[in-house]
Amino acid sequence: MKKTLGQLAEFLGGTAVGDTATIITGVRGIEEAGAGDITFLANPKYMRFLETTAASAVIVSPDVSPQGRSFIQVDNPYLAFAKVVTLFSVGVRDYFGVSPQAFVHPESDVDPECAVYPFVYVGKGAQVKKKAVLYPGVYLGEGAFVGEESILYPNVTIMNRCIIMNRVIIHGGTVIGADGFGFAHEGDKQVKFPQIGIVVIEDDVEIGSNCSIDRAALGETRIHRGVKMDNLIQIGHNVIVEEDSILVAQVGISGSTHVGKKVVLAGQAGLVGHITVGDGAIVTAKTGVYKDIPPGEIMSGYPMIPHKKWLRAMPVVAKLPELRKEIESLRKRIEQLEKKTGKV
Amino acid sequence: MKKTLGQLAEFLGGTAVGDTATIITGVRGIEEAGAGDITFLANPKYMRFLETTAASAVIVSPDVSPQGRSFIQVDNPYLAFAKVVTLFSVGVRDYFGVSPQAFVHPESDVDPECAVYPFVYVGKGAQVKKKAVLYPGVYLGEGAFVGEESILYPNVTIMNRCIIMNRVIIHGGTVIGADGFGFAHEGDKQVKFPQIGIVVIEDDVEIGSNCSIDRAALGETRIHRGVKMDNLIQIGHNVIVEEDSILVAQVGISGSTHVGKKVVLAGQAGLVGHITVGDGAIVTAKTGVYKDIPPGEIMSGYPMIPHKKWLRAMPVVAKLPELRKEIESLRKRIEQLEKKTGKV
Amino acid sequence: MKKTLGQLAEFLGGTAVGDTATIITGVRGIEEAGAGDITFLANPKYMRFLETTAASAVIVSPDVSPQGRSFIQVDNPYLAFAKVVTLFSVGVRDYFGVSPQAFVHPESDVDPECAVYPFVYVGKGAQVKKKAVLYPGVYLGEGAFVGEESILYPNVTIMNRCIIMNRVIIHGGTVIGADGFGFAHEGDKQVKFPQIGIVVIEDDVEIGSNCSIDRAALGETRIHRGVKMDNLIQIGHNVIVEEDSILVAQVGISGSTHVGKKVVLAGQAGLVGHITVGDGAIVTAKTGVYKDIPPGEIMSGYPMIPHKKWLRAMPVVAKLPELRKEIESLRKRIEQLEKKTGKV
Repeated sequence: MKKTLGQLAEFLGGTAVGDTATIITGVRGIEEAGAGDITFLANPKYMRFLETTAASAVIVSPDVSPQGRSFIQVDNPYLAFAKVVTLFSVGVRDYFGVSPQAFVHPESDVDPECAVYPFVYVGKGAQVKKKAVLYPGVYLGEGAFVGEESILYPNVTIMNRCIIMNRVIIHGGTVIGADGFGFAHEGDKQVKFPQIGIVVIEDDVEIGSNCSIDRAALGETRIHRGVKMDNLIQIGHNVIVEEDSILVAQVGISGSTHVGKKVVLAGQAGLVGHITVGDGAIVTAKTGVYKDIPPGEIMSGYPMIPHKKWLRAMPVVAKLPELRKEIESLRKRIEQLEKKTGKV
Repeated sequence: MKKTLGQLAEFLGGTAVGDTATIITGVRGIEEAGAGDITFLANPKYMRFLETTAASAVIVSPDVSPQGRSFIQVDNPYLAFAKVVTLFSVGVRDYFGVSPQAFVHPESDVDPECAVYPFVYVGKGAQVKKKAVLYPGVYLGEGAFVGEESILYPNVTIMNRCIIMNRVIIHGGTVIGADGFGFAHEGDKQVKFPQIGIVVIEDDVEIGSNCSIDRAALGETRIHRGVKMDNLIQIGHNVIVEEDSILVAQVGISGSTHVGKKVVLAGQAGLVGHITVGDGAIVTAKTGVYKDIPPGEIMSGYPMIPHKKWLRAMPVVAKLPELRKEIESLRKRIEQLEKKTGKV
Repeated sequence: MKKTLGQLAEFLGGTAVGDTATIITGVRGIEEAGAGDITFLANPKYMRFLETTAASAVIVSPDVSPQGRSFIQVDNPYLAFAKVVTLFSVGVRDYFGVSPQAFVHPESDVDPECAVYPFVYVGKGAQVKKKAVLYPGVYLGEGAFVGEESILYPNVTIMNRCIIMNRVIIHGGTVIGADGFGFAHEGDKQVKFPQIGIVVIEDDVEIGSNCSIDRAALGETRIHRGVKMDNLIQIGHNVIVEEDSILVAQVGISGSTHVGKKVVLAGQAGLVGHITVGDGAIVTAKTGVYKDIPPGEIMSGYPMIPHKKWLRAMPVVAKLPELRKEIESLRKRIEQLEKKTGKV
């Protein structure tokens, strides 16, 4: 791949400054970039690298004009760089077609334009649509569905009847559609409540590695369009996560909880079951969510309280020993006063 | 599958009311159910759906008698429904026998009534008993044992010599018998303490997806009969979990800790090593357990304190800034009083 | 394997006491050991087992001289026992060579002295060096590298171009090099920032099961020599963990954070992104790390504070309800005093 600076500026809808004929052949971070590379500056704390980078060009915001450099000004340099990286990324896939070393059930339906690597299992009645990619060790259960251009990375498990829609990315080791955690009590004994629902993963969702998304007891567990999930996340049965929400690593959501649109759940947050998190709410890292959150609220703490309250309360926690001493000292002074004024 | 309401009532030991000849052909949740379905009502907060559900019949508790409906009254509708779901569930397995695309070591012992899917590895000396099911990507190490009717879902790893007894269910991606985390110090260097013990999973245990249960350094890590484990749980080496305990998702238990019978460890709780949790104890979500818990106690918090204390203390944490101001104001009033009464 | 007590003492550089001709044929824990076994005593709380153990010999520290027993005195009994266990451990591997049931890309480079089990995928341009072991279900992406004597346990995923150096151990289900969690915003839409960096795992690192270590956005995520990681750990993109640090189970580290040398991160600790943890720092279990930690500091709590402060503050938290009552009572006494001294 080879582009001139001018061509890239046009591609990005930005303004090229300096030598617009500069040839760009690669993309790298501002510290590692060398001749032929384009890089970017989005975070002002890296400003000093503008002086030292060996990059041939830099993508910057409109208010930055590095002296003696060729650059492109755009409104959102991070976004623009993401687009350039995508442009320069070449597919690294080394396998195409349906491998004879895969197991494809005769009663399944796999589009010939897919990549089905060796050691993939495609169960009875399963469907795999155009340009989907199934890496080694992927398991597709009976009647499961994988939509167009979806990518299942190595050792991903999709249990029976679960539905993965289009352009979904699921990273290695993630398990979709294992049984939810549900037991009825018969006297002393736990009786398994059969989990006969499914999981639906809608278009453009990305799910990290080693996540667990359980199938519904009845009905569906559903991850709506555009949700982005990091690694090692637990989603209980019958959970709903609505469009464009972001779940950071090691979050856990218990059964039947409903997470609204554009919600952010930060790392290691935990949500109990059967609650609702309103659209646009933010739950900070490690927060323990035990009840509903209204739309747009920011919550923190274990147990959670409004974020602003938490920010004010936490510094006082560290000073509790001093506070206790202060109270003790006040008590003594009051006793003195009481003696003086003739009261026991 | 087709049953009359009367037949189902008899199967459940319950009382059919209404048209006992109603034909039931399926099971669904109260909101999704349609003609031919039986559903259930266990949680009073769904009572209003009794009016609107399209189900042909409902399983209810003895104190509920929905007008104009056919229903079955039983003591425990949730349990009864679980049994009906099990009755109506048909096996969804699409593979039987031992696949020629599996690797079965010539010196292993696999019962011919098992299902061994393609891409399963059965190591030297491993045993797989009657009606066990090994899904694709399952690894059974040298000398490992899988008992009757146990199910290992896709990409489950059982390391050498570990023992999975009867009717055990292990969901996708779980790793049993990886090395425990043990190192000796030789000056500056960490020397691996070889982990030569095993893991034993007893009868009727269910383990969720992507769990890690480490083998013992010496001796055993053991999960006793009937324990139910959710997803993404960490069990350190030499841990013992006794009968019928329940471990919710993302719990972590450090090495050599002993968890008693019928204990509940809620989501994201963490236990340090070398402690004992007494029978019937309950540890609430996210609790940090740093020392022994007596039988039957309920503990919460990080670090843990008795649950009742925690419930009283936490609301005060949120009010600490006000409390601090109050103390400050009291201090000033005392100063005033001291001045008045002639004391500095 | 058979050694006399005298031979073992010499091997360990220790002092044999009692019958140095005692034949040792096995190693077991002090409670399980029987005739022919050697065991050890490192933790004084197990001292009483010295009386009852059926072991033929015991490894003890120089200040312990069990009556009527044969034993070896060494400075570090735990380390010495680790060495004896290693001596007595025989390889349990049941597969050698490159399996015809593996997929080895014709343009890869696999040393003939490796073990490549069935159902391993070795991608185009991948290299596997001498005596490396790849268990079933291992995936090596295009251009990935595995150094000498490294062991990848079952169902480990190494994505394209990632580098695993020498004598590395990676337990089952761990995913190295999945995409980091990075998105740019284009109006309402999340645009994936392509993750084109790699992961480097240096010599002598051990990584537990079901961990997720993400590839860098640009540049590298790097785990330095000798780091030991437990299970279910999350490492974000561009994280650096320096030499000999220890990460306990379920720790999570967000993107671009830099962890120094010989740091200890205890179980379920969480670190935000873009911070630095100084050499030798200790983060206790469940701690929420939201900013830099200076070298050598011990931190606890959520949010973190210095460990000593935390130890003093936490007991007061449990007593907050009493403290609040005390403040209320002081307020009333002050009101009384104010009335008496003629002030409202």
